Amino acid sequence: VVEDVHFTRDTSPQKIGRKALARCFSDIAAMGGRPTAAVVTLGLPAEFSPELVEALYSGMRDLASTWQTAIVGGETVRNPAGLFISVALIGLVQRNAIPTRSGAKAGDAIFVTGTLGGSLAGKHLDFEPRLAEGQWLSQNFSIHSMIDLSDGLAGDLRHILEASGVGAELRRDSIPVSQAARLRARENGAGKPPLLAALTDGEDFELLLTVSSHDAVRLLDAWKEKFPDQKLTCIGRIESQPGLRLRDSEGLKTLSVHGYTHFS
Amino acid sequence: VVEDVHFTRDTSPQKIGRKALARCFSDIAAMGGRPTAAVVTLGLPAEFSPELVEALYSGMRDLASTWQTAIVGGETVRNPAGLFISVALIGLVQRNAIPTRSGAKAGDAIFVTGTLGGSLAGKHLDFEPRLAEGQWLSQNFSIHSMIDLSDGLAGDLRHILEASGVGAELRRDSIPVSQAARLRARENGAGKPPLLAALTDGEDFELLLTVSSHDAVRLLDAWKEKFPDQKLTCIGRIESQPGLRLRDSEGLKTLSVHGYTHFS
Repeated sequence: VVEDVHFTRDTSPQKIGRKALARCFSDIAAMGGRPTAAVVTLGLPAEFSPELVEALYSGMRDLASTWQTAIVGGETVRNPAGLFISVALIGLVQRNAIPTRSGAKAGDAIFVTGTLGGSLAGKHLDFEPRLAEGQWLSQNFSIHSMIDLSDGLAGDLRHILEASGVGAELRRDSIPVSQAARLRARENGAGKPPLLAALTDGEDFELLLTVSSHDAVRLLDAWKEKFPDQKLTCIGRIESQPGLRLRDSEGLKTLSVHGYTHFS
Repeated sequence: VVEDVHFTRDTSPQKIGRKALARCFSDIAAMGGRPTAAVVTLGLPAEFSPELVEALYSGMRDLASTWQTAIVGGETVRNPAGLFISVALIGLVQRNAIPTRSGAKAGDAIFVTGTLGGSLAGKHLDFEPRLAEGQWLSQNFSIHSMIDLSDGLAGDLRHILEASGVGAELRRDSIPVSQAARLRARENGAGKPPLLAALTDGEDFELLLTVSSHDAVRLLDAWKEKFPDQKLTCIGRIESQPGLRLRDSEGLKTLSVHGYTHFS
């Protein structure tokens, strides 16, 4: 995470530290893994206080201890332009239960956890990485493909589609738009419509996955029992025809929007 | 490695990539380890060319393949202020042959590989990490303590002394001053005297180690056979009295100089 890209000078340093680690946890979650050890590189501007470093680490440590992950090393360097934190994380996966981006098959049901859009309003700093969910999913179901949403639903789903050589149809009314995305649209009349925010806002850090349609109902039932307070929503299906389409009351249209682009 | 700290905009990107990885190799070397897998975070300024990224990775890849190390993943982020590369490296060590900083004992002989000082003249961009040497040392000798020289001999030896709770006496005439340190002093009359450069210049990336005095001659003999083209020099001894002292023709004086300080 880099100053003025992933946080600003006003962000609480605990939350900066937490976010740096939580992003990596989210990647491990998307492979159904269990994090074990982290290595942290801290880039510090010329003027910094020991309290800043303490607070960054306290944010990382709190989250690390929740998931029994050890911060085992790293390096501290000068970075004249501002603060950055780079975390490398080691995790363990069950050898024969590793979801990838490339296993989606025509006919698969597409699921997403939580709600989407508007993460910048606050969630990007205190989201819960879906580690428990990712492990449970990969251990109990044949997950054809899985990814964590960091670039927005439209962008990350395209990563799965491209890696798997398939297309997808989403149902407009099924997409779980977050309260934050709705609020932001209401507060700013000229802003992003909530559906567009849910499709393209970055940093949701939810899980997007596909399973055989045959498993879909069983998955939803078991999920409700296991994670009664967490949403899991079926938002569409994988199709053999390439491309990303959205079905609404007026019919089917090709979705041209992409997710967040890092270098625009 | 961070732009304007470890390299400048003029540095060849192959050499920047190589240096980022070689520094980590040097850390693994100091524990007698064998590198296996690297994770690379690239921070890229707003304007960058694909050729830059290609060249950075080509520098890393060349060195990685020499040491049969896989670059297994990482992340790319925007960094408005300039280029940085953060490498996390996994390596394997023999369980019962891991030299640390804390095992130096009074009476130990202190050794250093190569020559010291003046690395900024060029060596910092194309040094050979002492992996073969570190593995051979830890597998064939009881290495009481070892560290790689990144902050300068005086600074890094102090790390060993503090971690081990001991002191040391260096022999001035034994310190292997590099040709680069001598040249720089000659070119710039007001510059650092060569001995001071050898004691305090950063980024030598040589190995500093201590062994029982009983092993010292056997080590030197075996080294000459194994690494005939590499220098290994005995530069002094560990003593129970804390502090760092330098013996020259005029007697013994306390060394107050430190190595390179990252935040000065």
